[in-house]
Amino acid sequence: MFTFKVDEQIELRLLEDNDAEPLFALVDKQRSYLREWLPWVDGVTSAANYSSTIKMWRKQFADNDGFQAGILYQQELCGMVGFHSYHWANRSTSIGYWLSKDFQGKGIMTRACQAIIRYAFSSLHMNRIEIRCAEENHKSRAIPERLGFKKEGTVRDGEFLYDHFVNTIIYSLLKEDWKKLQQKS
Amino acid sequence: MFTFKVDEQIELRLLEDNDAEPLFALVDKQRSYLREWLPWVDGVTSAANYSSTIKMWRKQFADNDGFQAGILYQQELCGMVGFHSYHWANRSTSIGYWLSKDFQGKGIMTRACQAIIRYAFSSLHMNRIEIRCAEENHKSRAIPERLGFKKEGTVRDGEFLYDHFVNTIIYSLLKEDWKKLQQKS
Amino acid sequence: MFTFKVDEQIELRLLEDNDAEPLFALVDKQRSYLREWLPWVDGVTSAANYSSTIKMWRKQFADNDGFQAGILYQQELCGMVGFHSYHWANRSTSIGYWLSKDFQGKGIMTRACQAIIRYAFSSLHMNRIEIRCAEENHKSRAIPERLGFKKEGTVRDGEFLYDHFVNTIIYSLLKEDWKKLQQKS
Amino acid sequence: MFTFKVDEQIELRLLEDNDAEPLFALVDKQRSYLREWLPWVDGVTSAANYSSTIKMWRKQFADNDGFQAGILYQQELCGMVGFHSYHWANRSTSIGYWLSKDFQGKGIMTRACQAIIRYAFSSLHMNRIEIRCAEENHKSRAIPERLGFKKEGTVRDGEFLYDHFVNTIIYSLLKEDWKKLQQKS
Amino acid sequence: MFTFKVDEQIELRLLEDNDAEPLFALVDKQRSYLREWLPWVDGVTSAANYSSTIKMWRKQFADNDGFQAGILYQQELCGMVGFHSYHWANRSTSIGYWLSKDFQGKGIMTRACQAIIRYAFSSLHMNRIEIRCAEENHKSRAIPERLGFKKEGTVRDGEFLYDHFVNTIIYSLLKEDWKKLQQKS
Amino acid sequence: MFTFKVDEQIELRLLEDNDAEPLFALVDKQRSYLREWLPWVDGVTSAANYSSTIKMWRKQFADNDGFQAGILYQQELCGMVGFHSYHWANRSTSIGYWLSKDFQGKGIMTRACQAIIRYAFSSLHMNRIEIRCAEENHKSRAIPERLGFKKEGTVRDGEFLYDHFVNTIIYSLLKEDWKKLQQKS
Repeated sequence: MFTFKVDEQIELRLLEDNDAEPLFALVDKQRSYLREWLPWVDGVTSAANYSSTIKMWRKQFADNDGFQAGILYQQELCGMVGFHSYHWANRSTSIGYWLSKDFQGKGIMTRACQAIIRYAFSSLHMNRIEIRCAEENHKSRAIPERLGFKKEGTVRDGEFLYDHFVNTIIYSLLKEDWKKLQQKS
Repeated sequence: MFTFKVDEQIELRLLEDNDAEPLFALVDKQRSYLREWLPWVDGVTSAANYSSTIKMWRKQFADNDGFQAGILYQQELCGMVGFHSYHWANRSTSIGYWLSKDFQGKGIMTRACQAIIRYAFSSLHMNRIEIRCAEENHKSRAIPERLGFKKEGTVRDGEFLYDHFVNTIIYSLLKEDWKKLQQKS
Repeated sequence: MFTFKVDEQIELRLLEDNDAEPLFALVDKQRSYLREWLPWVDGVTSAANYSSTIKMWRKQFADNDGFQAGILYQQELCGMVGFHSYHWANRSTSIGYWLSKDFQGKGIMTRACQAIIRYAFSSLHMNRIEIRCAEENHKSRAIPERLGFKKEGTVRDGEFLYDHFVNTIIYSLLKEDWKKLQQKS
Repeated sequence: MFTFKVDEQIELRLLEDNDAEPLFALVDKQRSYLREWLPWVDGVTSAANYSSTIKMWRKQFADNDGFQAGILYQQELCGMVGFHSYHWANRSTSIGYWLSKDFQGKGIMTRACQAIIRYAFSSLHMNRIEIRCAEENHKSRAIPERLGFKKEGTVRDGEFLYDHFVNTIIYSLLKEDWKKLQQKS
Repeated sequence: MFTFKVDEQIELRLLEDNDAEPLFALVDKQRSYLREWLPWVDGVTSAANYSSTIKMWRKQFADNDGFQAGILYQQELCGMVGFHSYHWANRSTSIGYWLSKDFQGKGIMTRACQAIIRYAFSSLHMNRIEIRCAEENHKSRAIPERLGFKKEGTVRDGEFLYDHFVNTIIYSLLKEDWKKLQQKS
Repeated sequence: MFTFKVDEQIELRLLEDNDAEPLFALVDKQRSYLREWLPWVDGVTSAANYSSTIKMWRKQFADNDGFQAGILYQQELCGMVGFHSYHWANRSTSIGYWLSKDFQGKGIMTRACQAIIRYAFSSLHMNRIEIRCAEENHKSRAIPERLGFKKEGTVRDGEFLYDHFVNTIIYSLLKEDWKKLQQKS
């Protein structure tokens, strides 16, 4: 019901109970594609899994500790984006996202991230936004690079994926970086 | 951040922590106007009151038991509307609302209610929506009457307002009523 | 153990763990009779159901938000009566009840209700007591009518019973009504 | 509202919110008398203390872990009696009580204890009931002795009273003791 | 990880998740020996039982309400000892323990108890420590007797063991007793 | 009571309620020294602060989500060390520490960290341990460097200290790094 409008094509929506079915279907049809870089794919075995997960996401939102929203492209659910949690003392947060295979190459995630970054800096008064990507996940790394994030380092064995560790790259955007980017454009 | 678009002029927004100040200001400037029919006005003594109330509203939303949203008219906060709670077994819910004095007469509440009524019948699969108004609150009663609700009875001493009881009128709209109204228009 | 004495024949008892068996037996022997107007009959499939329900009723009592008591007629369990919840701000509450088929026609429920109504008005300082009955449930409607309650309206599709909705009639008794009735008798 | 009838003169009542005032008044008028043997007297400084305590007692009752009841002698509140908690695995419990100065010498506590002992053995299926009294509290010790309890030992420094320890005597009654006593009488 | 050193041979350790397996193995190999006097042996049917029990023990420790520690004799797990709970108002606590069959006769439990008794009197400022043993459990009773505890009485049917009750003996040591024992040695 | 022995001079202790006073005294005597790099110093205004903090640390331990231990050097409290939390899915954790001014230069923190690192890799089966230090805090950075940690990057504005942000350096040690270091020594 409640959405955050990114632009004429894209909306982010707080997921509701009746999104469990379409969300499961979206994941289920491209498991091998998604599980290459996402650790939770094998744990999703039915739409019922998503009922409790959606409840957990609503609780995160209610606790004012980030959110996970569905991405709608021309009204169709095609992925998710959100803030993992808010570190109020350090005024920092981090972005997580995934996009369906069929919706790649349209700039959807870049635009979605731009919108929530603006919200984090201007409404939540954050100072720092982080994105972590697996070192070899070039498609994912393109997002922060395109958005002007700065690469800060490589976390060795930063994430465990089913049976092996992968390194993760830390990217960040500070509020002052973002202001400069705004002025340029 | 997250809104429910009613039409080009009106949006409903899930209130966030930084809405406490403007919401308090809105109430504070028209206390005598609002307290005629709203029982909570005297309890609101500072913006800090709204911080905990907004937290409680987010929890209601997270519990999937209704919501309370701010009404934005041309981007300006001017009132609230929402569902008090969801009675899933009986598939019924009830609407509550209030609107700032300065925004009366623009059809704002009628349109806002139409939008959430559609959501309740078509997405939540409710069967019955109720609105209760104080018997003498003619401005409030005009909303359900304009929306095609049916008057079902008078609850004697249905609400306590500071120092006296008022009767409340029960109005309701059933899903089948709503479908017929849709066909007409 | 703890009871509320209505008169020489009738007592209301806060149910305890060892009431689960007799309560289940009472329901189980007249399922088709009870399910005509009670929505919870099919959900009661074993005495174990009542163990958790009795726990929930004790919690309601502990939260000072109403109670559900067993009705003993000449020491035999024959039904239940109680207040659904207390709305302290509006000083109102509502009564729920059901009586075994074999105990109909003895005035048991009328007397039980009279006793708890007195308690609600004189000890809890309630202002309004409501009883809702399905429109076609004439046996149930006879109770508030006999007790001097006033019919206030008809809630269309007010309750869902397994596979269909029924309208419910709202009856109420105000404290001032009750005082007058006391003076007459 | 809910009471446990002991005999024609005595009832035990689950205390309600509006008992806070009379209970406080009862304690407040005989502080020095009560504090000789009761450790909680100085902690009771207003009726408001009892509001939260009564809530806690209701919770104990809801948890099915004992109860604390007011003693009414000819409808007048004169003390309290109850089970501290239920040890279901060992099927044992213990009794606590205190009685107002003005109501001593009428056999009130003995009769009240007899009634709850019967309940514990016959309804809760307890096997053992314990009473602990301070060694020098002869009035209190007379209760278990009169009821046929057996003295089992002396707990050195068993209780702390404001500024000193007192020894406590353990008395107990087993179910088989109780059955024999029943046969005699 | 965290241990309380008793002497060169004995340590008490706060059990961790990976102790579930060895603890279960220790119990499982001597069930008939242990169940003679311990009521919980039949309830332990797998190492998984101990996972939740260890969690519960950690919670007891976090609540500052006693602890249950594994006894290591020359680095080998051979039993448990701890305080059941702390009664801060009366400044008293009680000890529970059990020791593997193969480790009897080495003075392990006597030394372990001496160490935690010292801790209770000198760090927790307890005034009284209690040990309860089944009347016929001579091996267990030897511990408090060897440690200078005083026998205070016999609790009839004090504990239920699977299918029968046993009497338990109450032993205690007061802080002043302990100080005298210290001076002698 | 429960400690983790590092070597003949150093022990780590799970802090108890009666450590609140000495811990507060230790912080209070060197506020300006500690607040240069620690964000929590100004929030510690009395020993009572530490009572609730110690409770929170015990809860963290009970939740099996890391621990905070006092460092004892020759039985004297001189600082703290612990794991912030355990990320079980990624098998990683991070170390936090601070040391009193007067105890610098004795290799205390290096030895303490070595001991808990061994515990994390060999008992908890972690794969990665992280240490984050402010970029300009050379004393703190010397610890991971001395322990063979690898510098992975610089988190810009990683921490907020009262009125300004500081960059933080990420260091890490993987289990395989640690094994190699073990073989060398």
